[in-house]
Amino acid sequence: MASEEINVPPMKDLNIDNITENTVIINSQSSDPRLTYVMERLVTHLHDFARETRLSTTEWMAALNFLVKVGQISTDVRHEYILLSDILGLSLLVDAIDHPKPPASTEGSVLGPFHTHEAETMKHGDLMSQDTEGEPCLVLCTIKDVNGNPIEGVKVDIWETDSTGHYDVQHADRDGPDGRCVMKSDKDGVFWFKAIVPVPYPIPHDGPVGQLLKLLKRHPWRPAHMHFMFEKPGWDHLITALYIRGDPYETSDAVFGVKQSLIVEFNPADAKTAQEYGVKEGSKVLRHDFVLVDEKETERLRDENALKALKALGRKVKLLNHLPVPDLD
Amino acid sequence: MASEEINVPPMKDLNIDNITENTVIINSQSSDPRLTYVMERLVTHLHDFARETRLSTTEWMAALNFLVKVGQISTDVRHEYILLSDILGLSLLVDAIDHPKPPASTEGSVLGPFHTHEAETMKHGDLMSQDTEGEPCLVLCTIKDVNGNPIEGVKVDIWETDSTGHYDVQHADRDGPDGRCVMKSDKDGVFWFKAIVPVPYPIPHDGPVGQLLKLLKRHPWRPAHMHFMFEKPGWDHLITALYIRGDPYETSDAVFGVKQSLIVEFNPADAKTAQEYGVKEGSKVLRHDFVLVDEKETERLRDENALKALKALGRKVKLLNHLPVPDLD
Repeated sequence: MASEEINVPPMKDLNIDNITENTVIINSQSSDPRLTYVMERLVTHLHDFARETRLSTTEWMAALNFLVKVGQISTDVRHEYILLSDILGLSLLVDAIDHPKPPASTEGSVLGPFHTHEAETMKHGDLMSQDTEGEPCLVLCTIKDVNGNPIEGVKVDIWETDSTGHYDVQHADRDGPDGRCVMKSDKDGVFWFKAIVPVPYPIPHDGPVGQLLKLLKRHPWRPAHMHFMFEKPGWDHLITALYIRGDPYETSDAVFGVKQSLIVEFNPADAKTAQEYGVKEGSKVLRHDFVLVDEKETERLRDENALKALKALGRKVKLLNHLPVPDLD
Repeated sequence: MASEEINVPPMKDLNIDNITENTVIINSQSSDPRLTYVMERLVTHLHDFARETRLSTTEWMAALNFLVKVGQISTDVRHEYILLSDILGLSLLVDAIDHPKPPASTEGSVLGPFHTHEAETMKHGDLMSQDTEGEPCLVLCTIKDVNGNPIEGVKVDIWETDSTGHYDVQHADRDGPDGRCVMKSDKDGVFWFKAIVPVPYPIPHDGPVGQLLKLLKRHPWRPAHMHFMFEKPGWDHLITALYIRGDPYETSDAVFGVKQSLIVEFNPADAKTAQEYGVKEGSKVLRHDFVLVDEKETERLRDENALKALKALGRKVKLLNHLPVPDLD
């Protein structure tokens, strides 16, 4: 809807029943139909939330003060709004919407607030955790397409906590990145590295999100996991994690990230593996094959899901840059 | 719903279709039914918003970064989240829900982000603005109940900008409060003071809320107004403002605050008024009668509106401390 088409009515005497349509109209003056649509849904849901809860002024003010605190505790290395999105199930939902997975491909999981862009590029076999207290492990992986063909040159980002359950950025006195690295898959789609066996840890709960969890009588724990992110032009960006079987928090992850297909086991290294990769016999080994999806296939699936979902909601939309906007024709 | 009644299912393999109900369940473990209800509606609307817009990861991250900025620009004297709530129409809506007005009572308006608790207590007739550039005015008011009886001892908070359209707290080099005061109504319900004629001004738009308005092709202006807040035990707390007739932004207030019944006129002081109140003949005078509502009557109206609205939505609720919670009996 272009600016010149909008006839904004006089805004006066707004009340419970007409504030929403008026706010939507005044927000519809940009020439960006996606912005108009997103704002329309945002304002409608925000207002419906207030109307359905009969939100009181005291609750409204408490909520606004909470939101200020979530912003103010955030830093370059602590994104409390990602954390809030995570514990409200929004992060998992957005990933599921944006990265639909055809059968046999690797499922996504939550990014979390601890990915950074400062990880060192390492070569296969490098040790990505300097934590000598952690239990050493060897991680042997491949990256393939849904037909089983190896994918070469995929940039893989890997990050995990230390043995105390903290990411490097959570230590004020850290020297530099640790427990994280970037590497590339070779012509066989292989990448491998040495790390430590992940441990369960609580998400940062000394801030407003922690207070909310407490109020909700929820624990802040995540089951032990290792994060992976895969990028290569032409392939759907994959953010995922591998979870260790049998973790006490396997079915109560504070951020809803666990999927059955992402639960893995560490096995003891046999003599051959130990020799081949230079690790102790009996030390822990994780083998995993990741499967990426062609970007076009993801796009096609995403479009199909979007149109189906919005049709079911009775909304007349079309896709613009693969995102829904109202269909006004 | 008490903690012991909740049977939280295993949380695994959550997807677009089941994430909402699972998040709602895990958020239902507190013994506070109001918290449970508010969180249920919040999560449902948040998730529906993402599903209906097919929110992309890029948009999600942009939104979270925006929310961080809104928190980080906030200070003790700048509440950017109130501003955000204001421009989204939420503030007006919450006031309308929480403070329903019977006929003949003074309507509410938005609080805005500039009320402080440091205003000096003044006596009737005092000058509450030291801005010599402003056009002087005399403000003569009464406070009555809906039957026309004066209300004595009401604490009145009054605040306005200076002649440049800035509140005292917006000046980094200010000496102390200015353009604001607190006074009490006398036995006839009267309070009066000297001030300056309000001017239109833009809400602070050098921050994220200003950027959003720009993106939405909305202007940041508010029509000229003077804020009033009334408090006395037993009477419904009234937050309102008086707007000057004929302002260029009368029908396009950036925060939706204008009501026809709150639009007033300044008239020239006649000889008698000038002499009685010690002002120049012909200088501006505003006379206004405010009408407060008995707290019990407001409570009754609020309850009635809540039950009616929620019945219309098909929700089975009851009121607990005058706020809806699910009726599970």
